[in-house]
Amino acid sequence: MTTPQRPYNFSAGPAALPEEVLQQAAADMLSWQGSGMSVLEMSHRGKEFISIAEQAETDLRDILSVPANYKILFMQGGAIAENAILPMNLSEGGQTDYVVTGSWSQKSAKEARKYCQVNVAATNEADKHTRLPNFGSWQLSDDAAYVHVCSNETIHGVEMHELPDLASLGSKAPLVIDCSSHIASRPIDWSRVGVAYAGAQKNIGPAGLTLVILREDLLGRALPITPSGFDYQIVADHESMYNTPPTYAWYLAGLVFQWIKRQQEGELSGLAAIEARNIAKADLLYGYIDGSGFYENRVGADCRSRMNIPFFLKNEAHNDAFLAQAKAAGLLQLKGHKSVGGMRASIYNAMPLAGVQALVDFMKDFAQRHG
Amino acid sequence: MTTPQRPYNFSAGPAALPEEVLQQAAADMLSWQGSGMSVLEMSHRGKEFISIAEQAETDLRDILSVPANYKILFMQGGAIAENAILPMNLSEGGQTDYVVTGSWSQKSAKEARKYCQVNVAATNEADKHTRLPNFGSWQLSDDAAYVHVCSNETIHGVEMHELPDLASLGSKAPLVIDCSSHIASRPIDWSRVGVAYAGAQKNIGPAGLTLVILREDLLGRALPITPSGFDYQIVADHESMYNTPPTYAWYLAGLVFQWIKRQQEGELSGLAAIEARNIAKADLLYGYIDGSGFYENRVGADCRSRMNIPFFLKNEAHNDAFLAQAKAAGLLQLKGHKSVGGMRASIYNAMPLAGVQALVDFMKDFAQRHG
Repeated sequence: MTTPQRPYNFSAGPAALPEEVLQQAAADMLSWQGSGMSVLEMSHRGKEFISIAEQAETDLRDILSVPANYKILFMQGGAIAENAILPMNLSEGGQTDYVVTGSWSQKSAKEARKYCQVNVAATNEADKHTRLPNFGSWQLSDDAAYVHVCSNETIHGVEMHELPDLASLGSKAPLVIDCSSHIASRPIDWSRVGVAYAGAQKNIGPAGLTLVILREDLLGRALPITPSGFDYQIVADHESMYNTPPTYAWYLAGLVFQWIKRQQEGELSGLAAIEARNIAKADLLYGYIDGSGFYENRVGADCRSRMNIPFFLKNEAHNDAFLAQAKAAGLLQLKGHKSVGGMRASIYNAMPLAGVQALVDFMKDFAQRHG
Repeated sequence: MTTPQRPYNFSAGPAALPEEVLQQAAADMLSWQGSGMSVLEMSHRGKEFISIAEQAETDLRDILSVPANYKILFMQGGAIAENAILPMNLSEGGQTDYVVTGSWSQKSAKEARKYCQVNVAATNEADKHTRLPNFGSWQLSDDAAYVHVCSNETIHGVEMHELPDLASLGSKAPLVIDCSSHIASRPIDWSRVGVAYAGAQKNIGPAGLTLVILREDLLGRALPITPSGFDYQIVADHESMYNTPPTYAWYLAGLVFQWIKRQQEGELSGLAAIEARNIAKADLLYGYIDGSGFYENRVGADCRSRMNIPFFLKNEAHNDAFLAQAKAAGLLQLKGHKSVGGMRASIYNAMPLAGVQALVDFMKDFAQRHG
């Protein structure tokens, strides 16, 4: 349970962590499991850290039901680095398809142009990134090395609640998803995914760790200019220890994975419990916003993100007062991204339902006082 | 002071941290300075983290006397990623000079060949990386974009106690130093250095953070294939926040910098105190090894590292017993790198003189019992 003195933190990332995870990290700081070493001080080649690393990978594979023919890589650089690392590893300098649904996929497409031919197969720019283009409208290439989507747009609050079945759309390419801001918030249908990558600093834990989960047959295609430390084949061959991995971030991610596995909601446990809670949290907040008359969310009902909920005060003259009073009420980091404006509540896995309820209660009260 | 229950950790990296730093990190874990947030949970755009980041940079600039016309970048990927990122940013695809003095500089030279012409200006391979080639013997190119050295070879235990003055050697190129394993252990003569880079996991703190300190006139030369997140100009223009930085590692580095500034040895303080202590530690260990008759160090006397001290039992049949008994005596991670064999004691800034004394006492005792 969140203790009274800790406010609710709605940061889009780096973001709130489960308090149990922080308590464990504090308790382990001077000596991990009687080893006399902080995890920060362990050689990545030593048996202590290798046990931590292997357990984290096993737990993540379990939580996300990652098939045996997919590798899990623990890398660095975040999704922004992956925007380059991915085409270096997968495009072979040829044709690729990008679906643009917000700032993040736009950035990905732009960066990829350094390494390959980029076809923008669909874009929701005309809708100001508030709707998702129907799968049927995507103009896919005949010979793309891959099709890239951002399955949850952190800034615009647009989420793909179903991933496309590319084969049914006439493409033989593997689907690549940037799932940074909703990984581990719901299951992934691996039958539709070739590569999933995610910066860790939203649902997994610390900034500075990047997860790449990819089908083994996609390894070994790197361009000669790919840095060795970012060549998926080399990283995979060295169990993510070709360069010194971000060991402490890996350990913290492992604590988060164990926390996910412990979660219960009624009959549900683990990721299913997390997903049910995320649905309940999102329903509570969207439901209140839509009925309020004071606030609004502008994203299409079928693609509203469960994780990142941008919203606006209909009278934006109250914005500063809203933020100041929210902070005073223990509700932190609600300011919207500068490119969208307004407010944004990021309600990742670590945000309890009570935190969303506290936000809704505050919003109601604020609306009454300023309506 | 190190409490009795914490053993001495001689890991080459990730490596021991000052206990005061770990205690501070544990105390801050649930709420940094009354903010109600762990540093792990802070947006990198928020005023709390920006204050942490700026203080760390200011302190490092102070400790290392970094001139105002040098940028300090907080990056990711470690020295192995820098082996590619550096030539991407600085070679302009042309000629470069590399001095090979051990495994690390060898790796750097090999990786650079993907991006530019590499001239190996000198190598100590014939000496099995135990001597440093005289500056006068270096065969420098007329038109190199830079000259690269590894100023402390972690694996072979070879350190440059003076950096070359390239102008006096007839080169107009800037000197680039990979100083990963001795940064902040001694001053850097910036009049001789264009770029210094270092993985943080030896003397600075956590794995997953890479420092790049470079003269401003060297910015803006990146090859078009450079990933945006690793383009020095872009990173510098965004105060190391173009992508989400490894925020917690940055914070921990800041705690280490503050610890360095607090150090006192007699009249000396800060980095001068650290350096004096490092000299005393190295003298103690080398002095004992050389006089022991039981152990030996094979590195030339003029280039022995103060940080990484590889040594051998003259009778290697005792190696396993040495390691097992050392561990039982609270002296951890003394096994040498597999490419060199024998033992290695890494005695970075965080290792107190008492730790080296404990090692020497154990080595004496072991020699008596097995001599």
